[in-house]
Amino acid sequence: MSLAAVASHQTPARAASLPPGREAIAAVTQALAARFGNRLVTSLAVRQQHGHTLTWIPNQPPDAVVFPDSTEEVADIVKLCAEHGVPVIAFGTGTSLEGHVNAPYGGVCIDMAQMKRVIAVHGEDLDCVVQPGVTRKELNEHLRDQGLMFPIDPGADASIGGMAATRASGTNAVRYGTMKDNVLALTAVMADGSIVKTSTRARKTSAGYDLTRLLVGSEGTLGVITEITLKLHGIPEAISAGVCPFPSVQAACDATILTIQTGLPVARIELLDDVMIRGVNQYSKLSLPETTMLFVEFHGSEAGVKEQAERFGEIARDCGGGDFDWATKAEDRSRLWQARHDVYWAARALRPGAESVATDVCVPISRLAECVEETKRDIEASGLIAPIAGHVGDGNFHTQPLVDLADPDEVERAQGFVDRLVKRALAMGGTCTGEHGVGQKKMKYLELEHGAEALAVMATLKRALDPQNILNPGKIVAL
Amino acid sequence: MSLAAVASHQTPARAASLPPGREAIAAVTQALAARFGNRLVTSLAVRQQHGHTLTWIPNQPPDAVVFPDSTEEVADIVKLCAEHGVPVIAFGTGTSLEGHVNAPYGGVCIDMAQMKRVIAVHGEDLDCVVQPGVTRKELNEHLRDQGLMFPIDPGADASIGGMAATRASGTNAVRYGTMKDNVLALTAVMADGSIVKTSTRARKTSAGYDLTRLLVGSEGTLGVITEITLKLHGIPEAISAGVCPFPSVQAACDATILTIQTGLPVARIELLDDVMIRGVNQYSKLSLPETTMLFVEFHGSEAGVKEQAERFGEIARDCGGGDFDWATKAEDRSRLWQARHDVYWAARALRPGAESVATDVCVPISRLAECVEETKRDIEASGLIAPIAGHVGDGNFHTQPLVDLADPDEVERAQGFVDRLVKRALAMGGTCTGEHGVGQKKMKYLELEHGAEALAVMATLKRALDPQNILNPGKIVAL
Repeated sequence: MSLAAVASHQTPARAASLPPGREAIAAVTQALAARFGNRLVTSLAVRQQHGHTLTWIPNQPPDAVVFPDSTEEVADIVKLCAEHGVPVIAFGTGTSLEGHVNAPYGGVCIDMAQMKRVIAVHGEDLDCVVQPGVTRKELNEHLRDQGLMFPIDPGADASIGGMAATRASGTNAVRYGTMKDNVLALTAVMADGSIVKTSTRARKTSAGYDLTRLLVGSEGTLGVITEITLKLHGIPEAISAGVCPFPSVQAACDATILTIQTGLPVARIELLDDVMIRGVNQYSKLSLPETTMLFVEFHGSEAGVKEQAERFGEIARDCGGGDFDWATKAEDRSRLWQARHDVYWAARALRPGAESVATDVCVPISRLAECVEETKRDIEASGLIAPIAGHVGDGNFHTQPLVDLADPDEVERAQGFVDRLVKRALAMGGTCTGEHGVGQKKMKYLELEHGAEALAVMATLKRALDPQNILNPGKIVAL
Repeated sequence: MSLAAVASHQTPARAASLPPGREAIAAVTQALAARFGNRLVTSLAVRQQHGHTLTWIPNQPPDAVVFPDSTEEVADIVKLCAEHGVPVIAFGTGTSLEGHVNAPYGGVCIDMAQMKRVIAVHGEDLDCVVQPGVTRKELNEHLRDQGLMFPIDPGADASIGGMAATRASGTNAVRYGTMKDNVLALTAVMADGSIVKTSTRARKTSAGYDLTRLLVGSEGTLGVITEITLKLHGIPEAISAGVCPFPSVQAACDATILTIQTGLPVARIELLDDVMIRGVNQYSKLSLPETTMLFVEFHGSEAGVKEQAERFGEIARDCGGGDFDWATKAEDRSRLWQARHDVYWAARALRPGAESVATDVCVPISRLAECVEETKRDIEASGLIAPIAGHVGDGNFHTQPLVDLADPDEVERAQGFVDRLVKRALAMGGTCTGEHGVGQKKMKYLELEHGAEALAVMATLKRALDPQNILNPGKIVAL
């Protein structure tokens, strides 16, 4: 341990002065280059690729990008940065949408691209242990032969570490939960470089504070996740999927509420609005009716999914839905869900050349139709193109304004729209983000959502666990 | 705000000197008596009733017991205690089993018995908001007419506040999860008397640190829970239940693993060992074969539970199980599950006069049979009577040594047995408690389970959120 590190244990740590000075950056970069060789990259192109937001916030690149291959290497990097008061930003695949990996104070980006090992799969226990750089598709590829799956699916082929850090969820969450429900334990490097294992492989525990859930969704601001133990599920014996048109958002939401209330174990229930369907038809060469649609999927036994599909059909009809188009064949199902997964690109196809500034909110399901319909009126009044897709079983929906970022007036209109969207969701008892996370873009809404007292508790936690404020500073809570 | 309170905000708070002096206790008791009248009780009998452990740890009564009826009253009590450095112990029904409500440093016990309001039930959203003193049976009574249920069932008719505080679970957890999965949001009074709302009624959120899960399972050491928003479920259309004898613990565990791996959505799967069945037969006047038994229950549609029951029957037979005895009639099912619920009393019936010192551990399910069988051999070698019951779908089991607490040798043997049990579970990758919690009894195992680094993080969180150490001191982490 260096003298500087010893000193920092002897006196209470203070917040680093951010951004760090050139000397601190030079010292850290030099030490990392000596240790990591060509696994330390400082070219502008690579740095810019690692600092981005997929929002209107400008690119703020880190000072260097390093590619460790073990927890111990991550711990050494964090210790070195702590000694010099230099920020540390953990990076998975860079698919987060609200400005999570931008580096407003510079610092060292830890790219997990080389930490891609599936360390263990325990079939009898339905769990596995992975490094953070493994993506969800890579994991499912690895698991398939054993009849197992990891169901959390945020759309992008995100890394498991990033998904844990942002508390991701997606289309299967209505049945299988979010990352909060599917992470059993984490290994994380804390701000002082100590390595913490948050829990065991036991399916449940009451042994002390829930460090797992404290780190899940903390967006790299409380610790750097270096290993994840995940719950797995057996691949269902049978899957049935289908699409159903509805005359209105309200009718589709009514059908969703009844489905959930009836206890039908729907695995996915996704709403796409008429605008999004137009994009899907263009992009995925489909000919779906251009109205509100529900995409649904059931998992279970052959008889089970058949019964569930029939019941859903009855519910949909009762709510004014049109003909249900079932696809039990794997290839039809794949085509359908591929189209659903491609909505990000389908939306972009509606206005080629424009940037997509996707965002999400989540409300109690009883308010969902109202929230979506008000939002659609707002989009029209704002003169924006902003298709909507929702994980409606959870009351969660996305809208994806397509914006010319070079046009300040349009950016302002888009910002005003997102601001009203968030405030509308909060006024309905919802949250400013159901699954994207806070990043840089949603920080300003946390006090409105949680109140000053709860936000003060979050700031207290951040200060206690990262007194220097070096872990992904400028995200979630400002210190 | 009093002068003392202002001062405590100006200078960093220091740990109170525990136990507080007589003057501090007198000042607090006097102020509470003036404010709460006969809702403040200081009689020894009532104090002793509020300080107990259901273990071999002696009764350590609080100095006073107060019965608030609102969040604001709780906040005022906590503020008063904070001013004087007096401990605060939250109390639900007192059914926790590891020494959670004992008051080793005295202080004020906050009994939630008058905070019993079901504040709201939102049928469309499948959630409700309750005060902490509502018990799970009271809540289910309240919900039944609306076709709704709250499934978490730890056996005892515990309070919802206590269940949240201990991260309780029980027989239904294999299907419906634990309190961690079923609490959507909490209102809590923090150590400085501030009132925090941890989240909204949205089904999922990524909006900042997960304060809900930080408080769930914190056993009153980080905040006093005063309101809980819970997920609800529709009462299933059909329920089927049954019992099946097995030639060994291994055979019963094999059947359990296969059931879970197959994806059969079992709602309950409970193991009772031969000794426990003997107690059940005596206490509940049944004539079950005195061997390892599985009690199982399925929830779903009529056709669904029939199919699931048949599949389970096949699995059980393949694993060497005996004839499956199905009870689809409500009264038969009630009798069966009443017997399962009464195992605490059934166990006590095996040795009238002895005290029960129940405890639990949880291991990865692949190690469960080995862990239970080694534990049974240990019980025999120790000369103890200690029946076993397990929520085996989660790898969680209880053993209930029946001990003459007046016999030091026997107490020592029981302590040695529990010590070996915990270390056995930890060595198998498990946890020292799956659902009971830490309380006083399991504190010494947290470092062994989590490591010094993770325990240091827990202590950092405790110090940050309760710098005076007045919230249920002497539980979970020692400061």
